[in-house]
Amino acid sequence: MTYCLAIKIEKGLVFCSDSRTNAGVDRVSTFSKMHLLGQTDDRFLMLLAAGNLATTQAVVDTVARDVKEQNDGNINQATYLDEVADYIGQISLSVQNKYAPAGEEASFNAGASFILGGQIGDDSPELYLIYPEGNHIRTSKEFPFFQVGETKYGKPILDRIIEPSTTPEIAMRCALVSMDSTLRSNVTVGPPIELLFFQAGNYVAEAPHRKFPQHDPYLVQLRESWNAEIVSAFNNLPGLSAAFSDSL
Amino acid sequence: MTYCLAIKIEKGLVFCSDSRTNAGVDRVSTFSKMHLLGQTDDRFLMLLAAGNLATTQAVVDTVARDVKEQNDGNINQATYLDEVADYIGQISLSVQNKYAPAGEEASFNAGASFILGGQIGDDSPELYLIYPEGNHIRTSKEFPFFQVGETKYGKPILDRIIEPSTTPEIAMRCALVSMDSTLRSNVTVGPPIELLFFQAGNYVAEAPHRKFPQHDPYLVQLRESWNAEIVSAFNNLPGLSAAFSDSL
Repeated sequence: MTYCLAIKIEKGLVFCSDSRTNAGVDRVSTFSKMHLLGQTDDRFLMLLAAGNLATTQAVVDTVARDVKEQNDGNINQATYLDEVADYIGQISLSVQNKYAPAGEEASFNAGASFILGGQIGDDSPELYLIYPEGNHIRTSKEFPFFQVGETKYGKPILDRIIEPSTTPEIAMRCALVSMDSTLRSNVTVGPPIELLFFQAGNYVAEAPHRKFPQHDPYLVQLRESWNAEIVSAFNNLPGLSAAFSDSL
Repeated sequence: MTYCLAIKIEKGLVFCSDSRTNAGVDRVSTFSKMHLLGQTDDRFLMLLAAGNLATTQAVVDTVARDVKEQNDGNINQATYLDEVADYIGQISLSVQNKYAPAGEEASFNAGASFILGGQIGDDSPELYLIYPEGNHIRTSKEFPFFQVGETKYGKPILDRIIEPSTTPEIAMRCALVSMDSTLRSNVTVGPPIELLFFQAGNYVAEAPHRKFPQHDPYLVQLRESWNAEIVSAFNNLPGLSAAFSDSL
């Protein structure tokens, strides 16, 4: 399994991903799922990937090869971000179609989902969620984040905290808390955790990026504080006895 | 969808369930999913149900009919709780097998999961999770609760709070918070919320039981406090800037 998320705020885009892949519990490995597709003086393109690792690797490699060979339709030729989303969706679909028939018998799933985030030229930064079928949706004001993989454990905190006006620091911290809740509940999501912030329009500078290993001091501190804070928050809740006529 | 959970603590058993059923978004109804199978002077048997409503209703009705007709193997004859779990698993399986063939083409799913909780005679109270296949597991000290239906959103708070020594009031409050997180994230889980506490060995008295409608004052207060507490807990977390060499 995998957990990747991306958040769109007014100041830019936050990306966060785990690094565990597994094909059965005895084939657990570490792979980065955060792929910087391109950063030039007029575009920043980041891809987070979940699903079949063979499919996601093939997609990332094809994107890179099309740039290197300056093939038609490569990401540096796109004028709009949704063109890039569509291009990735089409590559993903064609990779899946190539391998799916061979695996039909064995409940094999070549499917993959992606979050594409970035900015081109004067357009605003945007996120796209690219489905295994190759189609895609973008964020809205009411729903300014996307998740792929094991999405449920980490969703409530995002629902409560994230708004368009959220600061980069808060959005990144929220992404880490969301990731930590997921790590805690699903052993197939695992460190190192990658976290990156792309500041809107900042095509030139290197985006702040950190990789948190399992026992990273900040991550440990965050985890312990969060657990203590949640328990204390819970203890502050109004007592239930008043809601019962029977004594508890 | 559905969300039901049951918690085993030293003092007894907590049961909590939502009441929404849906067969497509235009067939949304309200059904209780908390079924008191039997309460006599030597046993208390409660069933929470998730999955195909036709299957779960047929199971509950068959259990009641077997008692009424004093059929062999009915729940009042069982000496041990796991006999009851097995009996329910077998009824569930036979109901599913009866209807499954007709629905094979239409991606129809007759499956149902149950949580059986209760106590018989001098044995300790226990919970059983009964799978659609009819087999079942019971709790352990490390894992003293079961969930069925839409389980993921509400699991993290249970993981953090529940221990065997947790008091009934805290366990019930935690069940409501877990339910609230699920309601917030999945519209197919909905009120009224039912909550019941069975005190170990207390076969005679009526178990404290409450049904919380959508705008129940306590539920609203709990929801608002929890949201405020979570946001404040989040704001108390250590800042991320120290973890980045780059300035954010």
